[in-house]
Amino acid sequence: MENNIIPHLHAITKFVRQSANKHRSLVIWFTGLSGSGKSTLAGKVEELLFKRGIKTYVLDGDNVRTGLNKNLSFSAEDRKENIRRIGEASKLFVDAGVVVLTAFISPYRKDRDTVRTLLENGEFIEIYVKCPVEVCEQRDVKGLYKKARMGEIKNFTGINDPYEEPLHPELIVETDKLSVEETVKKIFDFIIPKILKEIKFS
Amino acid sequence: MENNIIPHLHAITKFVRQSANKHRSLVIWFTGLSGSGKSTLAGKVEELLFKRGIKTYVLDGDNVRTGLNKNLSFSAEDRKENIRRIGEASKLFVDAGVVVLTAFISPYRKDRDTVRTLLENGEFIEIYVKCPVEVCEQRDVKGLYKKARMGEIKNFTGINDPYEEPLHPELIVETDKLSVEETVKKIFDFIIPKILKEIKFS
Repeated sequence: MENNIIPHLHAITKFVRQSANKHRSLVIWFTGLSGSGKSTLAGKVEELLFKRGIKTYVLDGDNVRTGLNKNLSFSAEDRKENIRRIGEASKLFVDAGVVVLTAFISPYRKDRDTVRTLLENGEFIEIYVKCPVEVCEQRDVKGLYKKARMGEIKNFTGINDPYEEPLHPELIVETDKLSVEETVKKIFDFIIPKILKEIKFS
Repeated sequence: MENNIIPHLHAITKFVRQSANKHRSLVIWFTGLSGSGKSTLAGKVEELLFKRGIKTYVLDGDNVRTGLNKNLSFSAEDRKENIRRIGEASKLFVDAGVVVLTAFISPYRKDRDTVRTLLENGEFIEIYVKCPVEVCEQRDVKGLYKKARMGEIKNFTGINDPYEEPLHPELIVETDKLSVEETVKKIFDFIIPKILKEIKFS
């Protein structure tokens, strides 16, 4: 049936939206272990961007696992589909002119790289939120590591499911070495020139 | 695992975004037969809204069936999942402060009503794009009716799959009776007060 989709040419394109918003749209993809600080960082970076008048949105477990992806488990196959849908949803937001920040463990390299291929060059900014599993487990803000150790959660990344570090992320932040405020500043300073880079037809 | 999702409280809420945008966000859900004019109307209404400075986005087959929902068929079960995902994606856009216009046949009443329940009161505007199947088939802009008649497409709404008319849509437009321009104006005049209605904590 895919061949039966004939594209409509709508007047309001990504470029038109970016021009109106006076900034580019892209995905800031946070990846890292549970408890590394992804969602906290995404929220705080969004706050700074929003204050600069940038159109933003955060996708994280709170709004995705309870909605769009609520029919998915944490098996390897469903994790793949989870990330695929998040990637496609992110692409829609980018098309809509929005800077979208995603905060998901996204443990498999291949799945993240697939999302990258969905987007245009420069639209996928992978930020590796690096933190030793021991530190994440000590923090255990959600009590999930404890549950995983007790066998109440299967397929828990870092305990009984692998985390594959990014090979070439755009940025690495080490949250066991910098404070939240320092990390947020580092990310903001890194991404703001990319977002405010002059918009031209590519 | 759903119980293991602990919400993060992000500072930038739907209300904050709506306030910054100076307009409400909601879903304008076009439903009707293939060839009734849904995607054309969505695109043209979006154009008018965009010119008024309103943040908008169109979800239609072009960007959804080729991306987020490309792993779904046109069986009844997959159509249900198709509409569910579109509903959940729309909800994310509404949360992001965007007026989202959706253009999908969405033939089953129950599936549309389920989307309505995802959203808050007044956030789901169902527009029935009404047009006799004979007229849609005559138009056959995509050549799909011909293919369906020849048995090349199964489960084609209006030919060999049912279309369930909305019982209480917010608006009905009859595209065999009004011109595109008249219809666009009718829709615009209907929705603009809802979008520009004063924003208050509900």
